Amino acid sequence: MTDHPPMTGHDLDPASWSCPAPVRNPPTVLLGHGSGGAMTAELIEQIFLPALGRPDGPLTDSAVLDLSAAFGAGGRLAFTTDAHVVRPLFFPGGCIGDLAVNGTVNDLAMVGARPIALSCAFVLEEGTDLAVVERVARAVGDAARAAGTRVVTGDTKVVEAGRGDGLYVTTAGIGLVPRGVDPRPDRAAPGDVVLLSGPIGAHGIAVLSVREGMDFSTGLLSDTAPLAGLVEAMLRADPDVHALRDPTRGGLAAALNEIAVASGVGIEIEDAAVPVPDQVSAVCSLLGLDPWCVANEGRLVALVREERAQDVLAALRAHPAGVGAVAVGRCTDRDPGLVVARSAYGSTRIVDLPLGEQLPRIC
Amino acid sequence: MTDHPPMTGHDLDPASWSCPAPVRNPPTVLLGHGSGGAMTAELIEQIFLPALGRPDGPLTDSAVLDLSAAFGAGGRLAFTTDAHVVRPLFFPGGCIGDLAVNGTVNDLAMVGARPIALSCAFVLEEGTDLAVVERVARAVGDAARAAGTRVVTGDTKVVEAGRGDGLYVTTAGIGLVPRGVDPRPDRAAPGDVVLLSGPIGAHGIAVLSVREGMDFSTGLLSDTAPLAGLVEAMLRADPDVHALRDPTRGGLAAALNEIAVASGVGIEIEDAAVPVPDQVSAVCSLLGLDPWCVANEGRLVALVREERAQDVLAALRAHPAGVGAVAVGRCTDRDPGLVVARSAYGSTRIVDLPLGEQLPRIC
Repeated sequence: MTDHPPMTGHDLDPASWSCPAPVRNPPTVLLGHGSGGAMTAELIEQIFLPALGRPDGPLTDSAVLDLSAAFGAGGRLAFTTDAHVVRPLFFPGGCIGDLAVNGTVNDLAMVGARPIALSCAFVLEEGTDLAVVERVARAVGDAARAAGTRVVTGDTKVVEAGRGDGLYVTTAGIGLVPRGVDPRPDRAAPGDVVLLSGPIGAHGIAVLSVREGMDFSTGLLSDTAPLAGLVEAMLRADPDVHALRDPTRGGLAAALNEIAVASGVGIEIEDAAVPVPDQVSAVCSLLGLDPWCVANEGRLVALVREERAQDVLAALRAHPAGVGAVAVGRCTDRDPGLVVARSAYGSTRIVDLPLGEQLPRIC
Repeated sequence: MTDHPPMTGHDLDPASWSCPAPVRNPPTVLLGHGSGGAMTAELIEQIFLPALGRPDGPLTDSAVLDLSAAFGAGGRLAFTTDAHVVRPLFFPGGCIGDLAVNGTVNDLAMVGARPIALSCAFVLEEGTDLAVVERVARAVGDAARAAGTRVVTGDTKVVEAGRGDGLYVTTAGIGLVPRGVDPRPDRAAPGDVVLLSGPIGAHGIAVLSVREGMDFSTGLLSDTAPLAGLVEAMLRADPDVHALRDPTRGGLAAALNEIAVASGVGIEIEDAAVPVPDQVSAVCSLLGLDPWCVANEGRLVALVREERAQDVLAALRAHPAGVGAVAVGRCTDRDPGLVVARSAYGSTRIVDLPLGEQLPRIC
């Protein structure tokens, strides 16, 4: 217990953060339904897909629409949306505004799309300081410009005090998918190398450090960043990247599991190869969290053909958003649908999809 | 006071519905900022446009993007978003789910676009009955299919009990704008005829009838309906419809004012020509509301060239969503930027943009 970061918080009540084991098939909405883990997947499978209709392709954060009929052969448009409810609104390294934009830009980037326009809808709580609204709106605008796109349409609703939490932001985005580019979670193949664009866990722990009565002196900043430029750089090195995923809610564990299941491959990760900042490790061991399940918003996982892996890795490292990129593992035809981590001692463990919610309202 | 509908409500506390005169330039968010009236316009003008960037074209609910560079000449895409916070979630004639879809489909239709895909993001409050979530999701799916489109992407977040209100739904939509079609609020011209697709006020009063402790026996149903098919029918009669607007928040008064200001024309409306259902009139006179400011979600206003007006009116009336269509007025070069209503006795009054909020959380 000596390597934990100094905690200067007051009113600390760790019992209040504990998340009870989620009930399966509960009658009401639980926090775990928003986790990005197994309960979210069940909610989507049992309620949303039957109600809304099942898409033709794989379930990705962005839909890819073939507009050939309207625009001629090869015209493909990506379309995505994200609701953002992160608490607090401002955290080390970012705020709900840039997080929302980066989340949407990154969902587009994960299908290989270049973002062309965003929408932004606010649900404001009566009594919220207008200076807070302005600060968040400026972060939205600045982040959109930084990602090379812009907000072209929006909406604002106001709810009575006590019926919201300051503000919620929902962004949607559209992007163009270049010809020949088709990264999908179901295209990973045995032999593919697993690349990770940088250290994990900073976003989730940075948000946690400023709430629940905590005041960590970690100096850790959220990794929130747009990944569209990084993906463009990768695609120049290899237009046929097989799969891309940003490990947001549910973290690296959820991202890898999604790909393993969709592609029917096994994914073997070298535990020691996954970069976890010391502060993230320390806070996670203190609170019993798994860094592989902590949310990120400026990282990606790429599954690429072995013969292109070194070039793609070099392209990632040459981009400011990917300087910490590493190869962390490989796809196999053993253990289809499973993610397996191998320790430095050669022992292995199965990395499961998180069931409930480690850190509610992290994005 | 004898023509009011019977009210069987209990716990009636009319004082609690009163909306205090909104403060101009307040330091915090007020309910009036969500009204769709002058305070919303100020919020957009003073905070959102400077932060997010001002669009090149007029401020419409849908942005129209020229994708000629990507897709060849004439490729235009409409893009829009709407947050929905209506209370209660279910009301006579609809629920938050179909209202969200219709709101987004109609925003696309108002720039002449045919909807091709929707997104749908939920913010769920912990403890909400999953049966409610399912019922709303089914309404979303059914409404999308009824409007000839579908939900292709979505997101779900969960907030703690007490930080939401059951659920909020934010939809976004994209649509294709046919060549030669360009209805815009700034294209109305003197001589244009003002068409209204049916009676006004039913949506707002239907929602009001089931809240604030009321229980009107009006039998009034919300007018919530998709207008994309109606607009297609109109455009077949006249592809060059000058301006279209759905009178949602802020009602007919806000819709007409927006067009009058953007186009720099005067709009003269014959008071007696505007169809207001008896129940809407009765409830409005009881509560001191103006039916022209009450929200609708299945109505549109069209400004068309005089020589095409009869054909367009016939096309509206021939469509199920426009059977109650009427001509209600005309654009003039007098009183530019003003909406003027003329009574049956020849007297006139200026119809101003509502300042604050008559009926918060109506959509």
